[in-house]
Amino acid sequence: MRGGNPRESTWTRAESEAMSAALEAARQGPRGANPLVGAAILIDGRIIAVGHHRGAGTPHAEVDAIDAARHAGADFSRAELLVTLEPCGHTGRTPPCAQAIIDAGIPRVIHAIDDPNPTASGGAAALRAAGVEVRSGLLAPEATVLNSRWLECARARRPFVTAKTAMTLDGRIAAADGTSQWITGPAARASGHDLRARAGAILVGSGTLAADNPRLTARVGSGASSASTSPIHQPLRCVMGLRPVPSDAALRADDHWLHLPTRDPREALAVLAERGIGHVLIEGGATVLTAFLAADLVDELIVHIAPLLLGSGRGAVGDLGIATLAGAHRFQPDCPPVLLGDDIVIRCTASPRAH
Amino acid sequence: MRGGNPRESTWTRAESEAMSAALEAARQGPRGANPLVGAAILIDGRIIAVGHHRGAGTPHAEVDAIDAARHAGADFSRAELLVTLEPCGHTGRTPPCAQAIIDAGIPRVIHAIDDPNPTASGGAAALRAAGVEVRSGLLAPEATVLNSRWLECARARRPFVTAKTAMTLDGRIAAADGTSQWITGPAARASGHDLRARAGAILVGSGTLAADNPRLTARVGSGASSASTSPIHQPLRCVMGLRPVPSDAALRADDHWLHLPTRDPREALAVLAERGIGHVLIEGGATVLTAFLAADLVDELIVHIAPLLLGSGRGAVGDLGIATLAGAHRFQPDCPPVLLGDDIVIRCTASPRAH
Repeated sequence: MRGGNPRESTWTRAESEAMSAALEAARQGPRGANPLVGAAILIDGRIIAVGHHRGAGTPHAEVDAIDAARHAGADFSRAELLVTLEPCGHTGRTPPCAQAIIDAGIPRVIHAIDDPNPTASGGAAALRAAGVEVRSGLLAPEATVLNSRWLECARARRPFVTAKTAMTLDGRIAAADGTSQWITGPAARASGHDLRARAGAILVGSGTLAADNPRLTARVGSGASSASTSPIHQPLRCVMGLRPVPSDAALRADDHWLHLPTRDPREALAVLAERGIGHVLIEGGATVLTAFLAADLVDELIVHIAPLLLGSGRGAVGDLGIATLAGAHRFQPDCPPVLLGDDIVIRCTASPRAH
Repeated sequence: MRGGNPRESTWTRAESEAMSAALEAARQGPRGANPLVGAAILIDGRIIAVGHHRGAGTPHAEVDAIDAARHAGADFSRAELLVTLEPCGHTGRTPPCAQAIIDAGIPRVIHAIDDPNPTASGGAAALRAAGVEVRSGLLAPEATVLNSRWLECARARRPFVTAKTAMTLDGRIAAADGTSQWITGPAARASGHDLRARAGAILVGSGTLAADNPRLTARVGSGASSASTSPIHQPLRCVMGLRPVPSDAALRADDHWLHLPTRDPREALAVLAERGIGHVLIEGGATVLTAFLAADLVDELIVHIAPLLLGSGRGAVGDLGIATLAGAHRFQPDCPPVLLGDDIVIRCTASPRAH
């Protein structure tokens, strides 16, 4: 560990409490492709501020806590900053947190776990180079559980995978005759476009391409905007499968698309990782979703449920080789489900599985 | 119509607005086996109070509105009471509303629609006999839609049917090897016991009886209470199907059970109606649920969804003979879904279907 060996450190009770507070604050953040991170600032044994990351584009936890402490009139010369993940050393959508800590004049930092992401790490080293005392390992098991799927992605150097599916109450994505448009209503579909706009890439199988010929663009409101004119972020549009992509396919509207000629989810993710994609949204069909689930490569699952019963038709998920209830793929709801129009939207994160 | 012919009445703008307010208030009530009812009190063209029914055992809408008006110091001598359903003339868990209106000295009543229930009706006649002017038909179509499934039950003289099922996210009620206990967690199961305690009868198929040998009692908390010692209401325990009920079946614990030797849902409901059952809770299995759905006899559907994926196993609903998406059985969520532990609970009412 770059951050020092935790066995060599002894933590004060105040430090343990501050890291617990940081973990608790982290849990207030939005789950998804970004890690949950919390921070706390300790001065003379008292927690004077906590902060957390509220999602992409907003201040990181460390900066959130520093801002809160500054508002409270803190003197940082004796402060200790505790954070659940190693402060970043890179400039992403926000400036590096290591620099913010140095600028504030905070002399001591404890982070629970190192950042395994090569583009974000180096924060601890930058802090040390500036004379900040850095230790790590405090409540590391709790911090690891908090972001287990994100850490797994970072270590495997693969994108975070969100799978989204729209189904009936009885788990059908199409009726017996194949009709599937539209199972869910306009409000749920609009939220699907918001998801697209937050992903680096969107992926469907070649069967879905053949059946629906989707544009795969992120559209807002009326759906009038297109990939070429919209100001919103457009994901890389990907088709996975061995079939060629027809020359008149709607997703060929501009060059921002990719054919992944494989049936192996790991191979597809490796190509996306090489392209710098950190978050991929899988929209189906059932074959692709089942392949990713069977490989335990779905980190987050978003299910749109229409209050319909079909009793027959295509199921959302194919055979996963699960024989008994105890073998089921288990998820944990990230937040209470919401009603969008008449549809129910459920967001959940994959539970760690025994490998 | 006992309440007078609406074509002979002309409604003032204030009366229409008051009935709209009563309808809106009605929608605040809890959906289920009881009708949604709202009331408003109009004095000199001004709405001075609205009220609604908040569920079994609580004051009816008329009494709720009268109480609110009394608190506001209303003089009832020139008041007009508008209510979305004919005031009841019977003493159920609460005294008859007709009597409360007479006692308050309200001289004029307008109800949107008549009560088709023979045990509850007669309220309009009782009011007239006491010299109250009674008219009906104002916003009758809206009031009919509001309680369409309840009205259908009342007209067909059959119990209101709630079906409850517990499934995985992909609509499975058991894994490939038949394991199904427990798909959902303790909080969702406890809420299932609350449902039982509110139903007049609980019904399962003989297949479920053979597979699970359920007690079918309403249990609270630890599950330590039993049918014979519990102070909570116990539903009539029913098994539907042609197979005999084994002599050692757990549901034979006392005499409060019934074998319905039929596969026809209408026949089963007719027997329950004869026994005075107004609300039956169907808990499965899939064969019984499918038979009731296929006959369009499920008024309310409660789905407990565990955040699990199985990919195979028994589906919650069997073939309903639906070929295309437009033919799906459609429900409407009664309220936002809730999270109980890690499980999602969805309550919805069947939408009116073309017959």
